[in-house]
Amino acid sequence: MADLELISQHRCFGGWQRYYRHDSAQIGLPMRFSVYVPPQAEQGPVPVLFYLAGLTCTEETFMIKGGAQRLAAEYGLMLVAPDTSPRGAGIAGEDQDWDFGTGAGFYLDATAQPWSTHYRMESYVTDELYGIVTQDLPGDAQRVGIFGHSMGGHGALVLALRHPDKFRSVSAFAPIAAPTRCPWGHKAFNGYLGPDTDAWKAYDASELMSRARQPFPRGILVDQGLADGFLAEQLYPEVFEQACQQAGQPLTLRRHADYDHGYYFISTFMQDHVRFHADQHC
Amino acid sequence: MADLELISQHRCFGGWQRYYRHDSAQIGLPMRFSVYVPPQAEQGPVPVLFYLAGLTCTEETFMIKGGAQRLAAEYGLMLVAPDTSPRGAGIAGEDQDWDFGTGAGFYLDATAQPWSTHYRMESYVTDELYGIVTQDLPGDAQRVGIFGHSMGGHGALVLALRHPDKFRSVSAFAPIAAPTRCPWGHKAFNGYLGPDTDAWKAYDASELMSRARQPFPRGILVDQGLADGFLAEQLYPEVFEQACQQAGQPLTLRRHADYDHGYYFISTFMQDHVRFHADQHC
Repeated sequence: MADLELISQHRCFGGWQRYYRHDSAQIGLPMRFSVYVPPQAEQGPVPVLFYLAGLTCTEETFMIKGGAQRLAAEYGLMLVAPDTSPRGAGIAGEDQDWDFGTGAGFYLDATAQPWSTHYRMESYVTDELYGIVTQDLPGDAQRVGIFGHSMGGHGALVLALRHPDKFRSVSAFAPIAAPTRCPWGHKAFNGYLGPDTDAWKAYDASELMSRARQPFPRGILVDQGLADGFLAEQLYPEVFEQACQQAGQPLTLRRHADYDHGYYFISTFMQDHVRFHADQHC
Repeated sequence: MADLELISQHRCFGGWQRYYRHDSAQIGLPMRFSVYVPPQAEQGPVPVLFYLAGLTCTEETFMIKGGAQRLAAEYGLMLVAPDTSPRGAGIAGEDQDWDFGTGAGFYLDATAQPWSTHYRMESYVTDELYGIVTQDLPGDAQRVGIFGHSMGGHGALVLALRHPDKFRSVSAFAPIAAPTRCPWGHKAFNGYLGPDTDAWKAYDASELMSRARQPFPRGILVDQGLADGFLAEQLYPEVFEQACQQAGQPLTLRRHADYDHGYYFISTFMQDHVRFHADQHC
């Protein structure tokens, strides 16, 4: 039983929005996460949908801006959102850049010093937090999906592809879909994994997909705004699209004129994503 | 034609979320406001729904946390949210308290020095901003409603009661419903209006209602959470309820167990409020 400190809770759409803090064994520091528990959880375990947020975000961002609780209450899904990195690791320069270090954990287990001690977001999400929500909270470990935005879209695709036994459905908003090819990815991988570019491929959704065989037979949903200022330089959905074709992986990649990279875009298509996961678990 | 500077715009639910800045004649300072323009505005003028936010909020709060754009797009309503006070008035102590001065304009026209020069939120909302959205933007001046939260719930009720020719529908979340009786109201009225408590009654929704005669024949909707930490000391919905009975004013006052004062409460009941206004204008 994890030792969870309930920081706050708020009644919301007939369920509960809760914020927790705990001493994370994987991270070696206190971590915060948020959970929306739908009313259906009073009757027993419910499916779980993890959301991974983007650079600079926290465990609050999605719960405040996403507009997903209404849908989670309708379908009976638990929503879970971790923070985006360890905080207060005490590493020199950890707060210097907005796209590396604090708020930018990239959902991987760092192997390079000094990051490898605390920056273990992959194990934190897939092992520790996964365990908490399916053992200490009323989440059903047989029905777990994952989605996310930007860096968190990368995280969702990569964690689902690396742990298909744990995540049975996956979708993304404007994911960093081929991080070995873009500046955000280069910076993160070089810092967290070191200079060996071969090691980077293990955390690149397009690289992972190109070596997979239809890992998600019920499809993957990706939404991308065409007025997204990061699209050309950082995101590369077309590389992921090609990798899916190569892997025989059904992919619905929707390109939306005029939509940008923010939560006004995300909230617009939130309903389609929650339904996409609910159709597979509820 | 007002000289509006478009700060940013974001595609959202098929319409546009826009942020503007302008030199306000009423305030005598630059002011910001936000507008959600629904897709239906491409065909002609649409009904307008003003939202007034609470203490410490800005023109962004409602648009980020309220989850109303989905509903506005469905019904074809324009949403408008002003800031909660002038900013940068240069008055000594204006940033000292969270419940007075900056972020706490109380939607009145101050009469006491030094506030009376810039703190003119009533005229700003009902005259200047009202004119902008119905003349420069595609809002229909014949179909305008108003709602708000806490200090903004007070503002919505008071501005609707003082300007029933302008606002044809009104609702509120956890409004400060009898500010002449509570600490927030005492502090605001004493500072902005001076020590004459008779003058305060002109900005107290319950006082105004008790002297009115069924000003909103199609009813008023108020939602109040019973786990709201401000309920006992600051809000007094029961006083407003009694004033409505006295005035023959139909009121739907819903008390919700477990819900608190925040946007998790507000977003839960947003749909009911937008529908309440849409039923009267769309």
